[in-house]
Amino acid sequence: MTLAQALFAPRAVALVGASGDESKNTARPQRYLRKHGYPGKIFPINATRAKVFDLPAFKTQEEIAEKIDHAFIMVEDVEGALEDCGRKGVPVATVFTDGFADAGAEGMARQQKLAARAKQLGVRLLGPNSMGMINLSGHVPLSVNAILEMEAPPAGTTSIVSQSGTMLGTVLSRGAARGLGFSKLLSVGNEADLGVGELVGLLAADPETRTILLFLETIRDAAGLAAGARAAHAAGKPVVAYKLGRSGLGERLARSHTGALAGEDAALDAYFRDCGILRVDMLETLIEIGPMLAGRRPPDLERAPRVSVVTTTGGGAASVVDRLGSFGIETVTPGSDAPITDLTMGKKSATYGAVVAELLDFPGNDAVLAVVGSSAQFHPQHAVEPIISAAKSAAKPLAVFMTPHAEHSLALLAQAGIAGFRTPEACADAFHAYFSWRAPATSRNESPVEWPKDVPRKGMLDQVHALTIFAALGVPVVKHQVVEAPDYAHTLPYPVALKILSAEVAHKTEAGGVVLGISCRQEFDVKLEKLEKITPRLLVQKMESGLAEAIVGYRDDPVVGPLVLVGAGGILAELYNDVVLRMAPVDEAGALEMLAAVRGFAVLRGYRGLPQGDLPALARTVAALSRLALLAGRPVREAEANPVIVRQNGVVAVDALAVLKEE
Amino acid sequence: MTLAQALFAPRAVALVGASGDESKNTARPQRYLRKHGYPGKIFPINATRAKVFDLPAFKTQEEIAEKIDHAFIMVEDVEGALEDCGRKGVPVATVFTDGFADAGAEGMARQQKLAARAKQLGVRLLGPNSMGMINLSGHVPLSVNAILEMEAPPAGTTSIVSQSGTMLGTVLSRGAARGLGFSKLLSVGNEADLGVGELVGLLAADPETRTILLFLETIRDAAGLAAGARAAHAAGKPVVAYKLGRSGLGERLARSHTGALAGEDAALDAYFRDCGILRVDMLETLIEIGPMLAGRRPPDLERAPRVSVVTTTGGGAASVVDRLGSFGIETVTPGSDAPITDLTMGKKSATYGAVVAELLDFPGNDAVLAVVGSSAQFHPQHAVEPIISAAKSAAKPLAVFMTPHAEHSLALLAQAGIAGFRTPEACADAFHAYFSWRAPATSRNESPVEWPKDVPRKGMLDQVHALTIFAALGVPVVKHQVVEAPDYAHTLPYPVALKILSAEVAHKTEAGGVVLGISCRQEFDVKLEKLEKITPRLLVQKMESGLAEAIVGYRDDPVVGPLVLVGAGGILAELYNDVVLRMAPVDEAGALEMLAAVRGFAVLRGYRGLPQGDLPALARTVAALSRLALLAGRPVREAEANPVIVRQNGVVAVDALAVLKEE
Repeated sequence: MTLAQALFAPRAVALVGASGDESKNTARPQRYLRKHGYPGKIFPINATRAKVFDLPAFKTQEEIAEKIDHAFIMVEDVEGALEDCGRKGVPVATVFTDGFADAGAEGMARQQKLAARAKQLGVRLLGPNSMGMINLSGHVPLSVNAILEMEAPPAGTTSIVSQSGTMLGTVLSRGAARGLGFSKLLSVGNEADLGVGELVGLLAADPETRTILLFLETIRDAAGLAAGARAAHAAGKPVVAYKLGRSGLGERLARSHTGALAGEDAALDAYFRDCGILRVDMLETLIEIGPMLAGRRPPDLERAPRVSVVTTTGGGAASVVDRLGSFGIETVTPGSDAPITDLTMGKKSATYGAVVAELLDFPGNDAVLAVVGSSAQFHPQHAVEPIISAAKSAAKPLAVFMTPHAEHSLALLAQAGIAGFRTPEACADAFHAYFSWRAPATSRNESPVEWPKDVPRKGMLDQVHALTIFAALGVPVVKHQVVEAPDYAHTLPYPVALKILSAEVAHKTEAGGVVLGISCRQEFDVKLEKLEKITPRLLVQKMESGLAEAIVGYRDDPVVGPLVLVGAGGILAELYNDVVLRMAPVDEAGALEMLAAVRGFAVLRGYRGLPQGDLPALARTVAALSRLALLAGRPVREAEANPVIVRQNGVVAVDALAVLKEE
Repeated sequence: MTLAQALFAPRAVALVGASGDESKNTARPQRYLRKHGYPGKIFPINATRAKVFDLPAFKTQEEIAEKIDHAFIMVEDVEGALEDCGRKGVPVATVFTDGFADAGAEGMARQQKLAARAKQLGVRLLGPNSMGMINLSGHVPLSVNAILEMEAPPAGTTSIVSQSGTMLGTVLSRGAARGLGFSKLLSVGNEADLGVGELVGLLAADPETRTILLFLETIRDAAGLAAGARAAHAAGKPVVAYKLGRSGLGERLARSHTGALAGEDAALDAYFRDCGILRVDMLETLIEIGPMLAGRRPPDLERAPRVSVVTTTGGGAASVVDRLGSFGIETVTPGSDAPITDLTMGKKSATYGAVVAELLDFPGNDAVLAVVGSSAQFHPQHAVEPIISAAKSAAKPLAVFMTPHAEHSLALLAQAGIAGFRTPEACADAFHAYFSWRAPATSRNESPVEWPKDVPRKGMLDQVHALTIFAALGVPVVKHQVVEAPDYAHTLPYPVALKILSAEVAHKTEAGGVVLGISCRQEFDVKLEKLEKITPRLLVQKMESGLAEAIVGYRDDPVVGPLVLVGAGGILAELYNDVVLRMAPVDEAGALEMLAAVRGFAVLRGYRGLPQGDLPALARTVAALSRLALLAGRPVREAEANPVIVRQNGVVAVDALAVLKEE
């Protein structure tokens, strides 16, 4: 019996703490398993009853003669139940009980002990604080989720892994209302053992799953999820994430709710992109996008995406197209420069189907949007059914938005495997997510980087250390010399800059420790007097100038891992947060893509007739700094070249900062 | 009989071109009027039949003995039908027929003729290209909209005016599915006569309407809508707009669809704000927000809005709260620093109701959000009904978001007059729209402005003209003198700037016509040589410097009217489009609000310890330039002071541009 079988398709389950009182949550799993036709055996474990409803109950799992594949633990004494699982040789236990990492430091300690003991016993854990696992295609609703009061939720080929147990119910409930079926629905709880990543890996190998959805409040194991996502990509299964914590308030709420860092949103965007995970912005997009993706690969377009649109309602189409425009998506119409094909009123269904077929065949677009007005509610034969007929062999994504309340038509589309959207916003969001989808970054088999001999690997680094590391990585750094009492001699040509040199002073400029544009030795000596009072060692640098300034940074993020950042320099760019993040390392091509996304670099791209800057050289610098991620043990927590002066030919970093993890 | 009565509640209607063929759109109005219980008389007008279905038909309205209050015209010969209306003395005609402004220049000419003739005849027109008027509370479904196939759409106190006929169906259909009723639904078509503004005015006076919704593709009569919106505000009726054309693509589509300019989005935001109209971003927000607003006034908060949140699902609440955070909305919890009140699982309904009551009473918040998980679908008694009981006397807005598919609960909330939201995004959008809502700008009884004597009112203006106008308005302008051959004498102290002076050369800098920082007469003479080759007259200005640059602009927008703009100066601010627009004129307080919304002005607000700039002086300059809107006849099309140098004390405009409408 494999882990997947025990988890998803157990032949026998033990319900530890099953209640015979209908009003209790702990009575639900048994009822739901029966209600939805579980084909295996059910063993209620109850300390005080001989029967739970119509089934004989047991005091412990050990008393049961048959093999148990999966235990569902609902008792307070989780530890005792786990020991029982160990004695019985149960391979998987789902723990519904909460009061672990979700309940502060003490609970966290309890959880760590539980996980360690489970490992010793060879019992894999889902949870604690998990609402369970629902396998609809296999009729195993092993969960307390009240959504299972529903009659016959439809089975399908989409599976979901959720950090919120109640949101499984949301997805199932909303999906069922529009005929969208699911295969496996997994509530991961606190992820003490089985995490999102490993579960995605299991679903990647699950023959009943074609698309994998994620509802995330945090990322607890970035590497694990990246591995799972890569496995899913290899298996041709798209992975779609809805991740909370976009705003500071959302982040704070997710943290208070999960006891874990939610992660900075831009970092998560970079991470998802790197993993080949599509990220959607709206909750219903997560539910609705599945059919648009099933069996597809990332489009990896190198120009603006193009969509062809047909509609029976101008206003309805505009409500989607307006948002497509704001995502930089263009519309194209075969043989016309009209933005869309408008079949408002009175056209026959043959026309609608023929137009959809034509648009799907048109080589000038990347996807097709069909918008249907009032006929979708009462007369699916007018447009909805012709869409379904025309879409039979669609080689490109097709999305349908229907303006009225049209559940029957949504179900018809779902049955036909066509993506139907309830709102124009989710429809546009789906196109945006699809076109932003990239294949996972390929494994980076670059040669590892050597740490420069004269730089310590622990403690605080000063600017010369940082410049030395940067130079070793291949970043062009400013010519510089350290000068000291008594004579402060140097051999750099004037003009120069003079700066205090200290690992302790973080903001040199604010401390009055920077003098720029010193034109001769006489001036140098005057400026010196003030600076040497701050630190005994000073740094002299050649003055550099160019067309514009950039900032290039690196950060080993505690949630997602090493990131590289590039942005326009200066105070305004800082105010506008005009930076682009990617997982590190990046190569030069990847860095060039990043530069293209920085708005302020327009001034380096010939905006308003300005001279063009050396963007390839800047890209090489970004790639070079990103190689901090390849240092053995990744000792650097944070690094920044700011500013990097960009010239018509070449770039040069004139200030450097590096912070080690072990300060 | 008033216009409102004839339009909304006609005692007798003529259906001009009513068909007896069920499959035709033109057969629908008669069928729908009967189906939905129209209490008045129906007279089909048909050139070839004696009966249409079971009703006797007439060749013309003149043949009818009784008075006709409202004609619904569906024939190609709209002009003939209008004459018939005129002869019969019909006060209102709705024209379904298209082929007018929606069909190019010829159609536009036809429409203008039709409107002029209708005016002569004393017949008010709705349309052409209108899908009609549906009065649900009065049982007058005078429309071809197929949504009327629906049985008994619920009546309510929300009315809608739409530029898209099909979207009326969307609103009605989606509203009905969740128990939200409507009073009047109006399709305005091409607005040849009755426009959105006049209809809003009629609804402001309509006793059955409490909230007014607008679905807009363009603004054809900004002053008319502003007047209607002010009347609605005076009557205590919120007006909510969903306006297409936010992106360039959406704008292009709206233009191709309506034959009218859709308007620049930021200008429309300024316009809606000025009118006291709430603007929503999502289609379903328009449908769902009504109960949250009914009977309320604009909150006009002067600090960040505060919402208290209670939930039975952490993930569900987070999906709304995350977005609230991105709108700058804060959450507060009485007696706790937790972001929300989380009642996940196992709490009793009494608790939920008690918490809602407590939050509604809590003086520390401005609104309340209640989130309900799976119980909303099958067990409304657990949380939904307690919300309804607790909300009985809510003095502040309350919104409910339910995570599952929960139509019954949505209907319960709708019945109770409580706003229920289907998606977390629309819910957050509604809060954002509500908190952004401002009372309409009060009438601006400022003294009109005099045009400076020595500036022409027609033709092209040069920089000196522009500086003269600006100075007359009260803008501090740079000291300047015009110099000419042979000696180019001036009395300004050095350093100075020297610029070519010409109304024809728009981009002086690009033309090489600007020299800055001339330090003495000798240098002046050298620079002169080059410039005098471009234009014979030159402008000398005192050199000015300060802490930062701003741009202050004015535009008489063809769609919404006079606007004033302020933004950070410089090329990066231009790239980031860091500007704020308001309808002109603004006073100093209004201008200060604008400045607070410009991100780049952080550098003038003490960011990073920088010295503070004279924002009050900048605000006075914005207010002064905005007074261009008070010039009799508003001769100025566009004006710009760019840059305005901002100092620690005072500001000064160093470059000026003004363009007249009649160039």
